[in-house]
Amino acid sequence: MTAAPTIQAPRLGEPYLLTPGPLTTSFPVKQAMLRDWGSWDDDFRAMTQEMRDRLLAMLGAGADAFDCVPMQGSGSFSVEAMLGSFVPRDGKALVLANGAYGQRSAQTLAYLGRDYVLMDKGDYLPPRGDEVARILADDPAITHVVAIHCETSSGILNPVEEISEVVYGAGRKLLVDSMSAFGAIDLKVADVRYEAMVSSANKCIEGVPGFGFIIARKTELEAAKGNSHSLSLDVHAQWAHMNKTGQWRFTPPTHVVAAFLEALRAHEVEGGVAGRGARYRRNRDVMVDGMRALGFETLLKDRWLSPIIVTFFCPADPNFDFARFYELMKAKGFIIYPGKLTVVDSFRIGCIGQMDEHIMRQVVTAAKESLAAMGVSDATPPALALQERAKLAA
Amino acid sequence: MTAAPTIQAPRLGEPYLLTPGPLTTSFPVKQAMLRDWGSWDDDFRAMTQEMRDRLLAMLGAGADAFDCVPMQGSGSFSVEAMLGSFVPRDGKALVLANGAYGQRSAQTLAYLGRDYVLMDKGDYLPPRGDEVARILADDPAITHVVAIHCETSSGILNPVEEISEVVYGAGRKLLVDSMSAFGAIDLKVADVRYEAMVSSANKCIEGVPGFGFIIARKTELEAAKGNSHSLSLDVHAQWAHMNKTGQWRFTPPTHVVAAFLEALRAHEVEGGVAGRGARYRRNRDVMVDGMRALGFETLLKDRWLSPIIVTFFCPADPNFDFARFYELMKAKGFIIYPGKLTVVDSFRIGCIGQMDEHIMRQVVTAAKESLAAMGVSDATPPALALQERAKLAA
Repeated sequence: MTAAPTIQAPRLGEPYLLTPGPLTTSFPVKQAMLRDWGSWDDDFRAMTQEMRDRLLAMLGAGADAFDCVPMQGSGSFSVEAMLGSFVPRDGKALVLANGAYGQRSAQTLAYLGRDYVLMDKGDYLPPRGDEVARILADDPAITHVVAIHCETSSGILNPVEEISEVVYGAGRKLLVDSMSAFGAIDLKVADVRYEAMVSSANKCIEGVPGFGFIIARKTELEAAKGNSHSLSLDVHAQWAHMNKTGQWRFTPPTHVVAAFLEALRAHEVEGGVAGRGARYRRNRDVMVDGMRALGFETLLKDRWLSPIIVTFFCPADPNFDFARFYELMKAKGFIIYPGKLTVVDSFRIGCIGQMDEHIMRQVVTAAKESLAAMGVSDATPPALALQERAKLAA
Repeated sequence: MTAAPTIQAPRLGEPYLLTPGPLTTSFPVKQAMLRDWGSWDDDFRAMTQEMRDRLLAMLGAGADAFDCVPMQGSGSFSVEAMLGSFVPRDGKALVLANGAYGQRSAQTLAYLGRDYVLMDKGDYLPPRGDEVARILADDPAITHVVAIHCETSSGILNPVEEISEVVYGAGRKLLVDSMSAFGAIDLKVADVRYEAMVSSANKCIEGVPGFGFIIARKTELEAAKGNSHSLSLDVHAQWAHMNKTGQWRFTPPTHVVAAFLEALRAHEVEGGVAGRGARYRRNRDVMVDGMRALGFETLLKDRWLSPIIVTFFCPADPNFDFARFYELMKAKGFIIYPGKLTVVDSFRIGCIGQMDEHIMRQVVTAAKESLAAMGVSDATPPALALQERAKLAA
């Protein structure tokens, strides 16, 4: 039996990052960056291979039909690489958007000159299978559907299984942006069908930022040759070169890779995706319960709350000021995140990174004290906020 | 007066990277990565601004006409970003190639669908001003010339001042890939005219890999709006967003930025570009003198030798085997680099990173001992190699 997972706090005085990443990483993860590697050397090639193998293994049974291609840059670079490499120049994508990351995928396709149609569900309403089925039935030109697994704009966990069923039921292909979910929420080959997915180093695996990775079916990787609009972001070229030489095509972020490998080992010790996900769900539950006890309300009803990040409405009390709340929370050691809702004021608190329920209780205490410092006795949101939430199915 | 610069050796047992980057960085540079930052937070925004200001200052008088735009990914991502953002869709580029990096710029333009013509000087011969002038006179459609400052394929320092004069004499614009030279070799606005240049974190500033940066005239940055083929690599969009919000558009490699800032401060303490360049030239001179004393010959005649990396011919002695030489050198603590010449066998030794002349003497001793271990008594190259070198002007 594995020992109970322990988190490794950052150094004294360093604030916790309650954000969707970059997040708070363990000290050993950062310590792994205390040396230099030659990217051409065998030692580093072995590190790259171990990383790819460990990521692929998270897909469970059937993973051998897929391969893992790391890509330099932020997560959005990997999303662009996936879209440019797998949506062919004569293809057409349906983008399911309910927040900033869905919108960004559409914007990326526009840059690339790829035909696409956007299903825009606004700030947070989930794209549902029946809606997707209708669009696909009406537009036979659509070849690919792009779904966001966890849309951190609101913190919603979108129903990718349901979406996948209708996409393949209509004979189309699914590409998943699992940036902020992979590693904490299962995306197993046996459970949900897709051609490719993307995530990055500084999310639920708890590495530091500097690269992302695309996991795709080998048949799609082979078929992607010649598709890409970009030399740097060509997933096929990166994959072919890496499998031939063991090296990245262009200079890899060696230290970030070393940190990520350390993070992957810790992820396994914690119990893999199941263990990591359990800690994050507990973080969310403890934090949400505590915030609700202060009068705060979540944007989303419980069934849609991801264990990644949670949106809260700002209190109606005129004494509440988000900029001041942010500074008060930061002074107590917690960096929170602004909201992205367009209709009402909101803020977000992340549940991912090297934090456990004990830290989350401190977060709630800090919020309580910050409200008191602003002279806010009740965190109840305005009526408009609760009307907004009523739009969402339970 | 500044104290004599001291290098900071890596940890005991870690090999020196005698490569064109990733290179050996100081321990304090790596230690700067031992905490986490929120990329949205004021603290990190201030770090980004300090970094941009320090880089711009290296351009000397006239730098206020330029701005600095960091870009996630490897150096080649920044080159692609520069080409896609500054060569308009109806423009035409002349690429001056004498090695892999010139070829890569041409390949990038081909991916981007930008019209270009390649002047290919082979493995190492320098593109000269008179040749460039003739091509520009014959082809009025050419709008931009792309030059490689130091082509590390051979280690040649290309004559960018001479090239710049003919480019602007013909009313065209110059883009410079100064990846491996910037920070050790001057590229001052007052000395050489250009519209934009690019370099990266893990070269002569001695940071760790993870991002690059584009330094460009503000007029060119403004004019670049709408040019880019890529959302991620859009220099105008990154610049506009950064100047408006203080943040990178997409997640920055926060730890790599922190390391780079530490490296920039150390660069200033060493005496800036002049001090850094002086150490590297001394590294080169000590290493080249020592290697020549063993019978090794450099590909390039002295006037073309950069202080970045040096190509040596492999010895004619049949006992010499590069793979074995590499392993012997690595066991002694030095990671060297394979050669890229197509006509004769060669290898490369870098002069950049946290190394000084004392280390370079140890490199020569290690080479001497490695030759002895292989039973090579004389490192003289084959006659063919010396015939090759005779093609180059003194």
